[in-house]
Amino acid sequence: MEVKEKTSQKKLYLTDDLPFKSAPTTIGKYLLNKLNHLGVEHIFGIPGDYILKFDKLIEEHENIQFIGTTRENTAGYMADAYARARGLGVACITYGVGINIANATAQALVESVPLIIISGAAGSEEFIRCNELHHLINQTTTNYSDTTQLEIFKQITVGQAVIDNQQTAAKDIDTVIEICLRKKKPIYIEIPRNMVDVPIEEHIYHPPPKQISDTNVLEESVQESLKILQQSKQPVIWLGYEVHRFGLSELFLKFAEKYHIPITSTLLGKTVINEDHPLFIGVYQGDLSCDEVREYVESSDCLLAIGTMLNDVNTGIFSAKIDQKNRIFAQSDSMQIGYHHFKEINLGEYLQKLYEDQNSITYNLSFIPASKRNKNSFAAKKNTKITSKAVFDCIETNLRFGDIIVTDIGDCLFGSSEYVLDKGCFVACSFFATLGFGTPGAIATQLASPNQRVIGIVGDGAFQITCTELSTAVRYGIYPIIIVLNNHGYGTERPLIEGEYNDVLDWDYTALTKVFKGGVGIECTTEEEFEKALLKALQDPNQLYILEVELDKTDFSPSLNRFVALVNKAKSQSN
Amino acid sequence: MEVKEKTSQKKLYLTDDLPFKSAPTTIGKYLLNKLNHLGVEHIFGIPGDYILKFDKLIEEHENIQFIGTTRENTAGYMADAYARARGLGVACITYGVGINIANATAQALVESVPLIIISGAAGSEEFIRCNELHHLINQTTTNYSDTTQLEIFKQITVGQAVIDNQQTAAKDIDTVIEICLRKKKPIYIEIPRNMVDVPIEEHIYHPPPKQISDTNVLEESVQESLKILQQSKQPVIWLGYEVHRFGLSELFLKFAEKYHIPITSTLLGKTVINEDHPLFIGVYQGDLSCDEVREYVESSDCLLAIGTMLNDVNTGIFSAKIDQKNRIFAQSDSMQIGYHHFKEINLGEYLQKLYEDQNSITYNLSFIPASKRNKNSFAAKKNTKITSKAVFDCIETNLRFGDIIVTDIGDCLFGSSEYVLDKGCFVACSFFATLGFGTPGAIATQLASPNQRVIGIVGDGAFQITCTELSTAVRYGIYPIIIVLNNHGYGTERPLIEGEYNDVLDWDYTALTKVFKGGVGIECTTEEEFEKALLKALQDPNQLYILEVELDKTDFSPSLNRFVALVNKAKSQSN
Repeated sequence: MEVKEKTSQKKLYLTDDLPFKSAPTTIGKYLLNKLNHLGVEHIFGIPGDYILKFDKLIEEHENIQFIGTTRENTAGYMADAYARARGLGVACITYGVGINIANATAQALVESVPLIIISGAAGSEEFIRCNELHHLINQTTTNYSDTTQLEIFKQITVGQAVIDNQQTAAKDIDTVIEICLRKKKPIYIEIPRNMVDVPIEEHIYHPPPKQISDTNVLEESVQESLKILQQSKQPVIWLGYEVHRFGLSELFLKFAEKYHIPITSTLLGKTVINEDHPLFIGVYQGDLSCDEVREYVESSDCLLAIGTMLNDVNTGIFSAKIDQKNRIFAQSDSMQIGYHHFKEINLGEYLQKLYEDQNSITYNLSFIPASKRNKNSFAAKKNTKITSKAVFDCIETNLRFGDIIVTDIGDCLFGSSEYVLDKGCFVACSFFATLGFGTPGAIATQLASPNQRVIGIVGDGAFQITCTELSTAVRYGIYPIIIVLNNHGYGTERPLIEGEYNDVLDWDYTALTKVFKGGVGIECTTEEEFEKALLKALQDPNQLYILEVELDKTDFSPSLNRFVALVNKAKSQSN
Repeated sequence: MEVKEKTSQKKLYLTDDLPFKSAPTTIGKYLLNKLNHLGVEHIFGIPGDYILKFDKLIEEHENIQFIGTTRENTAGYMADAYARARGLGVACITYGVGINIANATAQALVESVPLIIISGAAGSEEFIRCNELHHLINQTTTNYSDTTQLEIFKQITVGQAVIDNQQTAAKDIDTVIEICLRKKKPIYIEIPRNMVDVPIEEHIYHPPPKQISDTNVLEESVQESLKILQQSKQPVIWLGYEVHRFGLSELFLKFAEKYHIPITSTLLGKTVINEDHPLFIGVYQGDLSCDEVREYVESSDCLLAIGTMLNDVNTGIFSAKIDQKNRIFAQSDSMQIGYHHFKEINLGEYLQKLYEDQNSITYNLSFIPASKRNKNSFAAKKNTKITSKAVFDCIETNLRFGDIIVTDIGDCLFGSSEYVLDKGCFVACSFFATLGFGTPGAIATQLASPNQRVIGIVGDGAFQITCTELSTAVRYGIYPIIIVLNNHGYGTERPLIEGEYNDVLDWDYTALTKVFKGGVGIECTTEEEFEKALLKALQDPNQLYILEVELDKTDFSPSLNRFVALVNKAKSQSN
């Protein structure tokens, strides 16, 4: 089976500000047409009886393909990755057992990913007849439905709609999707199975007025920011993920270029802009950063954090020096300058005002762009056991600009964090840190971006969690390269508290190609073997590749070694 | 790696009514010692930094072994199956991503399984410093913790304890575990990582007074029941799962034997008693039952449903004839006679009273015990393609009394529902119906019952969901037989609404033995091949076996065909 459409354009940063007119139709079809109108071409899920009617509608839809996954949580991870590339992702579950998707939903909440979970449910007349129905949880109920699943999703989504009213169905769908796209966070739509085919009348969606900043708040914050910038000798921008999520990358770059301020990014904000850009100096995360970036940022007298989350990962376990007096922290809907806050302020409008300012300064600063820094170059040494460093150097040397790196959590994340990549070409849940996101994430990214090659890098522990999803890659002809760093366990946990629980069984990962009857598996134990395998995979976009790299238990990348040093420092301080 | 203990006795139907005295210790050790006191010898989970300290304590505990699974939800399914065999199961997760275990917890809630979820969490001082910590969800917070995960587990457990108070820690643990064992349902314990090693003083657990029925209610319900029984010419008992969960199997049998009333069981209540018993006539689930059982039950003038849930599965999609005027529905804590209800009545005390009645009748009824009914016998025909019916007949013919069947959902469940099995030898989540429970369920059942052989029967769709857990079987030397019924998709859904979404990729399931570097995989396409493979596997308890059976897409067992007929009947009625 092939994916239906391999040439579609990526539609990034969708917003729900286009009117949408629907002829008389059914509730299920209205929802699908609306999703397709917003750019959705694939919906992930596994079928189950409460959602089967809707699954059938997806199958019959001419512009949307149902992508059957091997289980619910990976359907969630795939829809998440799809949303990161396309601007909106949808996963479809049956009732009850579908809460297997809860963690994927929580991740989308925390990392601001516009994800729609559509769940089937029992029809109210079924429930009234007898509420002891399979898959129902029944911890909390109304007279006509089990509301337990809804209560769970209230904890991990920003909007919920139970489509149980024919009169308001279209409007309820509109409202909750508008919340998803405005907040860039997950929502939950529950459709009792008796409602899927219920007719609805002609319906027009009028987008709500755009949220705009309070004029006075905006003006004061802009003027204060300009004053700080004028006084600053060496400002630096710390770029965050929200600039990607809210579609502000281009505006942001126009602002940064006009002022000529160098840009570092957070780990979660990596590739919000093209990293080949002359203003981009690399990723900053405190003591986890490379020396050049760390020294430049920490010698700055003014830090502009734009769309950045100040979490433990982005701050390098709180080792980042972000206590500059002249700091400006601008987030999607609020900002902080020094020690005071502004509310009701829109990041896009703030950036636009800064960009439009007539008297703006242009800095003339001395720094080395990431693209000009010496890249790790790699040439395989003969008969040399492969190491973690060699793997990352070899990938860096052979990467083509435009290739997409999707990483899991662990050394794969640390080791690839300094690659210089094109815009949108680094995908990782680097904050919420779901182990196992990498493999389904790579497949969905490849599906969403068919004209680029995706390289998924995952540790063996993470790969064991979600590797069955490679079945979906083979089934639909989606061909990323998956590099499995086999360091025989949960490597990143060993420096924390070591124990046998950090080991996993040693698999022959390449043998999965036999299981799935597709793909090419190559085991690599030397530098030459890995280089040869990687080149082969990069040159062959028409096959799934699994490259298993045999590493020692404690062979860490230089980046992970910095993490270990930081952990040990924290340990010794607490003793 | 071998499991620590292969000869331990099964401890069924644990209750928390033994005092437990603890010397001064730490919170983490108190919890583990208490769990071990209650019979827990294995805890399932995967490590993560918020739970690592506790994982280390498990590893160091002399009587408890940490069983590392490949992911969280399978850890939940395994702890669930372990609890069904042993009376209590425990799974251990890290914070946030650990909500992957939510569905397993919901299943335990719905099917009344005493399951304890232990989650790590950030320490309060960490959270106060900065609440933007990895894995945290932060949708609902207090000043000192993220309470989102707690709120989620409130929806799917009957008790929760956050162990954040040194003074009350031991008592809080006692209280919530007492709830788990009294209600036979899941609970949630969250331990911030800074609390694991906090010392606690000497502590004695005094069990609360046993709940007893209201004397008047008990007396009236017993007298009324006796009157109905005296008037009945042909009563029948419909036995349910609660009799197993509350440890009442022996008392129940003494009652049934004294009155000599024939016993049918629900599907979820299958093997609550030894099915070789002369009073046992088979499983009743309305039109899904075999003719003999259906006819006997439906001609009865008095149905005693004992510990039975009247759900859609148990009632054969509501085709069961349970509208006898003289019906008695006795559940664990309430009952219904005719059309009126009794509350505050304990099932054990009710059964004891019925058993002790001096004037009790002994029936002399004519019926055929399930053990005397003609068993499907099987002898492989030469060069004959294997069919679903042949698989089930072959298993039935070669099963040894005492072997345990663990099934997934689908034809594996329907097809094996009429086997005559020993007490406790049929394990399935036949009501909540989690696809994918079968494989981890079989492994954990084998671990919990090392002196019996476990045969897991799963469909290919379900197997794809959780097959990675066979890695855990190989790792710890746990050797069930797994029979994969490869009917190329979600077979049971095809009669509902057919579509490509019901297909799954065709794997070579036997090649998983190459991936895991362990076990024996045999593909079976003919009757002879399957019979030979099954006999080999049954004779070899020291290896994991994966028997893949190649079936046609629509080749259903006779039991599943009855289900299809019922579905089609419902469809034609709704048209």
